[in-house]
Amino acid sequence: MGFSSMYSEFRKKVYIVIYHTNTRAGRLFDLILLGVILMCVLLVMMETVAEFDQKYHSYLITLEWIITVFFTIEYLLRILCINRPIRYIFSFYGIIDLLAILPMYLSLFITGYNILTVIRALRLLRLFKILNNPHFTNHSNKLRRALIASRGKIVVFIYFVLISTIIIGSIMYLVEGKENGFTSVPMSIYWTIVTLTTVGYGDISPQTPLGQIIASFVMIMGYGIIAVPTGIVSAEISKISYNKEMQNPCINCDNTNYPSNAKFCPQCGHSLENI
Amino acid sequence: MGFSSMYSEFRKKVYIVIYHTNTRAGRLFDLILLGVILMCVLLVMMETVAEFDQKYHSYLITLEWIITVFFTIEYLLRILCINRPIRYIFSFYGIIDLLAILPMYLSLFITGYNILTVIRALRLLRLFKILNNPHFTNHSNKLRRALIASRGKIVVFIYFVLISTIIIGSIMYLVEGKENGFTSVPMSIYWTIVTLTTVGYGDISPQTPLGQIIASFVMIMGYGIIAVPTGIVSAEISKISYNKEMQNPCINCDNTNYPSNAKFCPQCGHSLENI
Amino acid sequence: MGFSSMYSEFRKKVYIVIYHTNTRAGRLFDLILLGVILMCVLLVMMETVAEFDQKYHSYLITLEWIITVFFTIEYLLRILCINRPIRYIFSFYGIIDLLAILPMYLSLFITGYNILTVIRALRLLRLFKILNNPHFTNHSNKLRRALIASRGKIVVFIYFVLISTIIIGSIMYLVEGKENGFTSVPMSIYWTIVTLTTVGYGDISPQTPLGQIIASFVMIMGYGIIAVPTGIVSAEISKISYNKEMQNPCINCDNTNYPSNAKFCPQCGHSLENI
Amino acid sequence: MGFSSMYSEFRKKVYIVIYHTNTRAGRLFDLILLGVILMCVLLVMMETVAEFDQKYHSYLITLEWIITVFFTIEYLLRILCINRPIRYIFSFYGIIDLLAILPMYLSLFITGYNILTVIRALRLLRLFKILNNPHFTNHSNKLRRALIASRGKIVVFIYFVLISTIIIGSIMYLVEGKENGFTSVPMSIYWTIVTLTTVGYGDISPQTPLGQIIASFVMIMGYGIIAVPTGIVSAEISKISYNKEMQNPCINCDNTNYPSNAKFCPQCGHSLENI
Repeated sequence: MGFSSMYSEFRKKVYIVIYHTNTRAGRLFDLILLGVILMCVLLVMMETVAEFDQKYHSYLITLEWIITVFFTIEYLLRILCINRPIRYIFSFYGIIDLLAILPMYLSLFITGYNILTVIRALRLLRLFKILNNPHFTNHSNKLRRALIASRGKIVVFIYFVLISTIIIGSIMYLVEGKENGFTSVPMSIYWTIVTLTTVGYGDISPQTPLGQIIASFVMIMGYGIIAVPTGIVSAEISKISYNKEMQNPCINCDNTNYPSNAKFCPQCGHSLENI
Repeated sequence: MGFSSMYSEFRKKVYIVIYHTNTRAGRLFDLILLGVILMCVLLVMMETVAEFDQKYHSYLITLEWIITVFFTIEYLLRILCINRPIRYIFSFYGIIDLLAILPMYLSLFITGYNILTVIRALRLLRLFKILNNPHFTNHSNKLRRALIASRGKIVVFIYFVLISTIIIGSIMYLVEGKENGFTSVPMSIYWTIVTLTTVGYGDISPQTPLGQIIASFVMIMGYGIIAVPTGIVSAEISKISYNKEMQNPCINCDNTNYPSNAKFCPQCGHSLENI
Repeated sequence: MGFSSMYSEFRKKVYIVIYHTNTRAGRLFDLILLGVILMCVLLVMMETVAEFDQKYHSYLITLEWIITVFFTIEYLLRILCINRPIRYIFSFYGIIDLLAILPMYLSLFITGYNILTVIRALRLLRLFKILNNPHFTNHSNKLRRALIASRGKIVVFIYFVLISTIIIGSIMYLVEGKENGFTSVPMSIYWTIVTLTTVGYGDISPQTPLGQIIASFVMIMGYGIIAVPTGIVSAEISKISYNKEMQNPCINCDNTNYPSNAKFCPQCGHSLENI
Repeated sequence: MGFSSMYSEFRKKVYIVIYHTNTRAGRLFDLILLGVILMCVLLVMMETVAEFDQKYHSYLITLEWIITVFFTIEYLLRILCINRPIRYIFSFYGIIDLLAILPMYLSLFITGYNILTVIRALRLLRLFKILNNPHFTNHSNKLRRALIASRGKIVVFIYFVLISTIIIGSIMYLVEGKENGFTSVPMSIYWTIVTLTTVGYGDISPQTPLGQIIASFVMIMGYGIIAVPTGIVSAEISKISYNKEMQNPCINCDNTNYPSNAKFCPQCGHSLENI
């Protein structure tokens, strides 16, 4: 057995491990990848906590390099085992995979502090690698379908909220004025969004009686209109749940209204085995 | 070809550009109008940011005049090309279009600062010009129908919330008193709305143990009753989504309102088999 | 015509005005009553605003007495025109009507400031008089039915929220301790309710990293479980909307699935006129 | 009648009182147990209120011992009257019952203040004893089923929220920086969760214009995506409510899962006419 056949054998095995998620090796690979991704996100986060970074700086750097090397090997293996590597490299997930390893190699050559901060933040893009994980994609399809179906109505709703926000913001700017923290119309709009969405920081709050009456109105409005997106999505999810039960009709009486595990037609009693 | 026929030809072309949204020129016109409206709203907002206004004041004024002239031309063209201009001028959108250009011309004659501020704020009414945009109206009909259908129940709900608010506000005024920020019953009611809608600024918050117990009760109540408007709108949108299933009309009486498995028209009794 | 027949005529007319809401006089009476109730609630509220009360004290008192006399006449007329006045006097609305007028008369005899404040607050009970108003009761029935039907599930839900609240509150008390504002377990529970219901005053907020992690968990939990009451009420309102269409079955084929305005059975084509 | 038959008679009676909730004694026992549990939770809470504890310390300790003795007797009786005590002792409720009485006995031997605080907090686990109460379990089954059915989608949703949280948190850390309170990425993520869930403490809030624009976006997003879990649970509860319609089982195969208008059992094909 020559080198080329060994190589093609190796490629095939790697391909199965990386892409065949229903084999045991594939499932293990997915789980390890998931674990490493979560660990490295935790790492990027902890680096920014000053006291933690001072104590364990060298450990963090070492761990970071280990993860980078791991992802580099994964990236090279993916290129190696796929039949059309160019297509993978320029695909969404290919670019994400590249961006996941590039920052560490770039940090060797770049020394400017600010640029480095941004580049290091790019490592968080590794999170998107999870979207490629079959454990995740299998479950999210129905949700995505419901959201896409209700997209049109939600856009109209958000547009309506934004218009309300601009109008209320301008009114509050006129009513409360600069001396009560509503320093400009954009600032007033910021306050309106904070109030309408029921977040309510309290960094700016109305001081005049008229302003408080308008604010009360905005709050009740915000409390009420939250019903709209909820209603839209609710109705869509309900519909998708019902629609999926598209069943073959009974041969005898054309009835489609039977439980999914039915063996006989509830309408005429005919067997449903062979439809 | 004389002047009058050229003029009538011109009127016709303008009419198509402005009102025929399914032609290419009409769609382009709508998009440009949308862009100009959004730009001018941004402009009005940025004018109120002190530091931004100081730097670019002359640019803002110039841009403002360009937009005003653009809207003026649009307004005149609309009057020109419509067969019944008087009706347009006194319609809702006609008044909005006029109010969109008036403030700038008025600002030439008026010098009082406060009046000017209010007049300049009127420019925001341009936002309503968007409601006339077909991109917007097409999508919002279903939402509007659901809200209108649930109007009665939502009014009862808001009435119930307001009664609760007044009663709880009065109790909190008695319990907490002036020294803890609940200076009057209206102020207590303001606090109750802030709490019940889960906004929670924190500018006023209960200090006595009894007040905190009542507040906890109000919060849980607010958290629970948000279910009511959501449930109402949800149910309405669901119903409208189901009803819309477009069916062929009955040959005999043009009725489309029949169950999906109907064999005879419920309106006239005609057979529905072959439609 | 003697006095007794005139009196019985008068009683009958009063009865029609007060209780027959579908006559013109009855509708007018209901509207006036509604207006007076809302006005007097506004009055009670404004009395507590110190600066407003100082300016208009005598006007407020006069108006208050006019309203009291109006309600007194209404109360006496109700007793007069009903056949079983005793039953009315001890009914819920009878007691409310009495409590609506008593405070002003009591205030003549009582001089203690604190007791007077509470007694005057009782005037707010007049709000409940509105519940007796047919404009209100007609619309609220469906909502009430939905809430009653989902009562069992909502009680379990609130019970679950309370247990979570106690457990999380105790944990936060141990984690954050007295020095960060979590002075006792009841105070921690208060914080937990403020957070779980997404009110978030910010008067107490976690300071330790572990406390902030737990708080994040509580917020996401609170954000998620708001789905439960909404889902319950939604489902109930949907069901009531569907169920109400209980229609008589077709005489010919026993079918009940037809539009509410159907004239012919969509199943067999038989007329639906006389069922 | 010997001792052993008296003992077996006693065991049987105890068993009926504790486990037969449909007898009068059983219902009384359940209610007493519920009352004692709630009382002792109140007790644990009040102990931590400094001023209350100082006044009534000895009363609290006495009451605490009475409750502990009551629970000890209950625990011993349960072991006594069950046929397989070992299985009960190591079951979930067995361990909860043991943990409910252990802390007080341990507090006799342990003197370290901090350990004691934690051990005393364990008494709150008594709350879980309620889960065993039939008044509670009967009602919660439907809710639990709806939540289990929607578990998959809710996990995906929470995962999506967490990813958004990490990405937005990192961006806000870069935009606002340490000087505006966003001291580290974990702190920024904490802020993002506080904002996205519309809690909004206001202890950290964005100061730069860009930060406020991003915050506005996060709030509207949070306001919108709350629709997703609500929609999921709503749809599930709706489905369960419809399915539950209790129908007579098929005479032939005991199946109850058939459409309401079925004429033949979908499981075995037997006629459903006369059940």
